[in-house]
Amino acid sequence: MEEQKVTPISRLGEFGLIDHLTRDFPLQHASSVKGIGDDAAVLDYGSKKTVLTTDLLIEGIHFDMMYTPLRHLGYKAVVVNVSDIYAMNAIPQQITVSLGISAKFSVEALDELYEGIRLACKIYGVDLIGGDTTSSLHGLVISVTAVGEADADALVYRNGAKPGDLICVSGDLGAAYLGLQILEREKRIYMEHPGVQPELNDAQYLISRQLKPEARKDVIRFFKEVDLKPTSMMDLSDGLSSDILHICKQSGVGCNINESAVPVSEDAYQTALSFNLDPITCALNGGEDYELLFTIDEQDETKISAEEAFTIIGQITEQDNGCFLVTKSGNRHALKAQGWVHF
Amino acid sequence: MEEQKVTPISRLGEFGLIDHLTRDFPLQHASSVKGIGDDAAVLDYGSKKTVLTTDLLIEGIHFDMMYTPLRHLGYKAVVVNVSDIYAMNAIPQQITVSLGISAKFSVEALDELYEGIRLACKIYGVDLIGGDTTSSLHGLVISVTAVGEADADALVYRNGAKPGDLICVSGDLGAAYLGLQILEREKRIYMEHPGVQPELNDAQYLISRQLKPEARKDVIRFFKEVDLKPTSMMDLSDGLSSDILHICKQSGVGCNINESAVPVSEDAYQTALSFNLDPITCALNGGEDYELLFTIDEQDETKISAEEAFTIIGQITEQDNGCFLVTKSGNRHALKAQGWVHF
Repeated sequence: MEEQKVTPISRLGEFGLIDHLTRDFPLQHASSVKGIGDDAAVLDYGSKKTVLTTDLLIEGIHFDMMYTPLRHLGYKAVVVNVSDIYAMNAIPQQITVSLGISAKFSVEALDELYEGIRLACKIYGVDLIGGDTTSSLHGLVISVTAVGEADADALVYRNGAKPGDLICVSGDLGAAYLGLQILEREKRIYMEHPGVQPELNDAQYLISRQLKPEARKDVIRFFKEVDLKPTSMMDLSDGLSSDILHICKQSGVGCNINESAVPVSEDAYQTALSFNLDPITCALNGGEDYELLFTIDEQDETKISAEEAFTIIGQITEQDNGCFLVTKSGNRHALKAQGWVHF
Repeated sequence: MEEQKVTPISRLGEFGLIDHLTRDFPLQHASSVKGIGDDAAVLDYGSKKTVLTTDLLIEGIHFDMMYTPLRHLGYKAVVVNVSDIYAMNAIPQQITVSLGISAKFSVEALDELYEGIRLACKIYGVDLIGGDTTSSLHGLVISVTAVGEADADALVYRNGAKPGDLICVSGDLGAAYLGLQILEREKRIYMEHPGVQPELNDAQYLISRQLKPEARKDVIRFFKEVDLKPTSMMDLSDGLSSDILHICKQSGVGCNINESAVPVSEDAYQTALSFNLDPITCALNGGEDYELLFTIDEQDETKISAEEAFTIIGQITEQDNGCFLVTKSGNRHALKAQGWVHF
């Protein structure tokens, strides 16, 4: 086996490292007037609206270096941000990436991280235009800010849902959470029995949903094609239960979610049972699926009903109704917000 | 003495904490179409150019909680970003603030941090429009992104300096670095003799330059008043020596900096000597002064020569000349870039 090259970051120095990491990110957008290399990037949006979002990822909280390949981590750091831009019905255009790096990382490790960032930039069509690279005492910190653009009348906020609207999601839910459970289980086994090879082959789908999620660029494109503007939308990062509550709170409405309609993949369903977890609870509270949750006017139902990508999971109600999960047997359970579980 | 209230963050939960911290940040700009509370903020810049910058601050690297009041830290985190916007000759408009918080912080501690952020928002006229709040395993991480606007023809980049241009700085240099030396000395004394009260009264100026720097909003306003557009500009965050090299590299020019012209305050000068440090070395390499370094056409000299705020410290040369510090006795020393010293 060829020995892997390990270059200490100190060999390049701060400015050398930044030049090295950002050397192969050609600007793709006319709106990227000036990218990396000055005090600030310069953007030109003419008459469009500019959309801006940011996410902070911290080692030990958002990712575990033991089972997270750096390439996937770089990719995911971009995806979670562009997902927020799509959730505004806008198109991502630029990102900045700031890194806090501890001494354990080599230049080659950071190259891998940037390979993932580069791939995401290509796939989602965004320009890397800036950032800040610094050292950290403890592990890796990644802060990504994404900028998008949209016509003013295309933007979809969280506050536009109205009674009678249909509640829809793209894709299926709970898989990312179950992928994490598998990775955590294999980590525990490895810690106790370092010789044992992890059993991950059967769980490719769930693990990829956790380590390398995709943002639903295709959904935004589809909305444009069929001339559908959701009344509200957000991306599913915290979990359906928390996220629909944000929409209900901001729109001043209630909701009924039909338990039997919530889309869960067969893989996720079986894996949940093998962990003695309720599949629906995983779908409601798991988070990190980066699917789109949106509401549409009832009259628009025909625009999406033929599409496999979407599931209608419930309906918006008057605020007095409250926010409920309705089970197959007709029981109603109040939906609860989850935040972090770290404190 | 009244006992200080200490509320664990878990009492508010993630969403409660965000609502609590961001409750008193009224939007000041018409361009802030939508602030906190959706997947992304929405900005409207009409025909202006948008300018974007970001900085990552990590406990133990950029600040030491032992001598950094959280109020000042919040203030400084905003200032270092708006300083980058001014360095483009642009006007800051919005910021996002992302926090990674370890369990040692209480709600009251974060309130203090946000008090500093709120004050900076007020003084620099920026709207807080978003961010991300998460937990961290080790200490505090702050990531701030600032957005500014400018007319396209007002923007000043780092690449416009030309031979013959005068090199200017605002304010005085080295004070922030010497403030840090004092704080580090008092920390060492305190660690060895916990009963000893720190001696900081004589060092107010230097310490405030370190803990609560200001961005030169006044300089950008002045440029507009006297109709002066620098040929290049950046803010002094890494230190004059590193920073002028960025301008020279990007502009394809050389420079001569006159050692005797570099502005050092009397406080900084005396304190440097008391630490057996060369005052000029502190001014060249200290960093964190957040003054503006800029070049102007020789014909514009009269526009600034009456202003105490500015010092002409040298001149841009042809690239072949290289980049030098010229001492009082006429010796030439090559300027060197410094990056972080953390690796």
